[in-house]
Amino acid sequence: MTTDQREQEVLRRIERARGRPARLRDERITLAHGAGGKASRTLVEAVFLAAFHNPLLAPLEDQAVCEAGGARLAFTTDSYVVSPLFFPGGDIGDLAVNGTVNDLAMSGARPLYLSAGFILEEGFPVADLTRIVGSMARAAAGAGVRIVTGDTKVVERGKADGCYVTTAGVGVVEHSFELGASRARPGDVVLVSGPIGDHGTTVLLARGELGIEGDVESDTAPLAGLVSGLLDACGAGVRCLRDATRGGVATVLNEVARDSGVGVVLDEGAVPVRPQVRGAAEILGIDPLYIACEGRMVAVVEAGRADAALAALRGDPLGRGAAVIGRVVADPAPLVVCRTEFGGTRIVDVLVGDPLPRIC
Amino acid sequence: MTTDQREQEVLRRIERARGRPARLRDERITLAHGAGGKASRTLVEAVFLAAFHNPLLAPLEDQAVCEAGGARLAFTTDSYVVSPLFFPGGDIGDLAVNGTVNDLAMSGARPLYLSAGFILEEGFPVADLTRIVGSMARAAAGAGVRIVTGDTKVVERGKADGCYVTTAGVGVVEHSFELGASRARPGDVVLVSGPIGDHGTTVLLARGELGIEGDVESDTAPLAGLVSGLLDACGAGVRCLRDATRGGVATVLNEVARDSGVGVVLDEGAVPVRPQVRGAAEILGIDPLYIACEGRMVAVVEAGRADAALAALRGDPLGRGAAVIGRVVADPAPLVVCRTEFGGTRIVDVLVGDPLPRIC
Repeated sequence: MTTDQREQEVLRRIERARGRPARLRDERITLAHGAGGKASRTLVEAVFLAAFHNPLLAPLEDQAVCEAGGARLAFTTDSYVVSPLFFPGGDIGDLAVNGTVNDLAMSGARPLYLSAGFILEEGFPVADLTRIVGSMARAAAGAGVRIVTGDTKVVERGKADGCYVTTAGVGVVEHSFELGASRARPGDVVLVSGPIGDHGTTVLLARGELGIEGDVESDTAPLAGLVSGLLDACGAGVRCLRDATRGGVATVLNEVARDSGVGVVLDEGAVPVRPQVRGAAEILGIDPLYIACEGRMVAVVEAGRADAALAALRGDPLGRGAAVIGRVVADPAPLVVCRTEFGGTRIVDVLVGDPLPRIC
Repeated sequence: MTTDQREQEVLRRIERARGRPARLRDERITLAHGAGGKASRTLVEAVFLAAFHNPLLAPLEDQAVCEAGGARLAFTTDSYVVSPLFFPGGDIGDLAVNGTVNDLAMSGARPLYLSAGFILEEGFPVADLTRIVGSMARAAAGAGVRIVTGDTKVVERGKADGCYVTTAGVGVVEHSFELGASRARPGDVVLVSGPIGDHGTTVLLARGELGIEGDVESDTAPLAGLVSGLLDACGAGVRCLRDATRGGVATVLNEVARDSGVGVVLDEGAVPVRPQVRGAAEILGIDPLYIACEGRMVAVVEAGRADAALAALRGDPLGRGAAVIGRVVADPAPLVVCRTEFGGTRIVDVLVGDPLPRIC
């Protein structure tokens, strides 16, 4: 098969698995369209995928894997609109670097180059910009990438919120494993690389809207090293990697369930959650499974490689809190269900609405 | 020399040519910092370049040329904040594709892949988004590139202006010529690929602020084919290519003069400007040399290849209006001067302030 035939085959397979094309009924954009859940997915499928229709975009992974000049590249982008711009453990600059580095890393790529586009509001303090840019430089050095190209636009007062940053990233894919949300199989094991919900909870508390304070920091961190260790240990036994950002672990697993046509059973007691995150989540009435992380990933791994995967993750400082949290099942597909600590079972549905806007 | 040694040598050469590092005295961001002129340059050098300090970013071309997996790539990004979103001849979607394609093309790269990050304001009409995305899809098809990855964020009402789009692009550099603003030499010839200022004038008239109407359309267009024809005809005789966007032809030539340590003498009568653009520019009190184009480029070419360059440009529908508009001189460096139609000479200085905000 030629590359083109292979790509068309991928496209047909994805379209078959997804069934009927999504239809967007909303007339106006709502915050839910940016939440990473059900409304986001419908917008992406009905508007973006329908128009840009191509086999490289169609898998809707966090990055595209594509060929250029004989090299196999990963390419990704994210816009960052987090509010507030600065929070315990990081700022929009760290997020903009680590988030894009992680989207590359989840394909197993080695991140190389980043671009940075700034949209600044007239009147934004230069000292704040300098601080953000300094964070980006440190985060880039920490992740081993270089910021090689950029752009700055300024809009009038009241047409932005201080500073928005959009980064894109290019990495090189040096392995030949296929990773993706459509590759999970019944029997596979689901791991998470550490306690979940730290980032989202931190940003929320930093806004002061809850009227509570908590001793929690964003987990923003670059995960390429962690991924590399995992792939070294488990090779093609790794089915799928996703960083659990907007929409949290619940959203990642719902996408895996849908794209692979499988079910996922979580063991609630096994999911690592810090007490302060659990406390804030209770006050908010939100399940920690839906709260964004910025330095945690979900890995779906062949059962026979589960121990090796856990050991590889725990051997890395960024994966010390890794845990097996569930397994992939044939039925009930495409649902994610959670065995509670009291012996019950509840459905962990796709996110509807946006309980935590502008978290990243 | 190793790649690393070569890169360090480039960095030293650039720093020598530029002299003392820029210092930013402003405490707050102003519209001028986004105008592409003097304030933009100072911000970029004093804040971004100082922090991200690396030899791939340092040339401050519209794209970085870098290696990945053995391939020579061009990589670029631009954020688009044009107001209004729709204007005669195009919309923010066309700009976001063509602008990024052109930044790749100016390195002589073949544009391949684009990413698209959307920042949407809550309440933005889905119909407008669909129209913009449709324009992007058509522009991508026209330019022979694929939009392979993206992101959508939504911010609360009043925290954006409808829709901002940031695209990044990856292309492959298949030739071995070095192109760049630091490569102009006395004796070289300066060409422009068509009438200038159409885009900026169109956007300005579309805002209705001038109270005049004009029969002018944006020149937004993808220039990779035009560049490819020019390089085929003139090879290493091409010194530098730049699309004349924010800050117009004047800003491009000031950057060439500074980075190459040369002067540029323009022949005002030879610069192609449509009568309606000239008329609007007179009302505004702006020199058309400073008005943005989105489908025109400036080419600096060895004198011996000037005729071949002009013929190559004019042989392409997008370069039919090409003209030789000036030449590179040793003195007065690093100034751009213009011989007026009345026999006088005036300095075409770097842009100060922002007479035309949010033009792209």
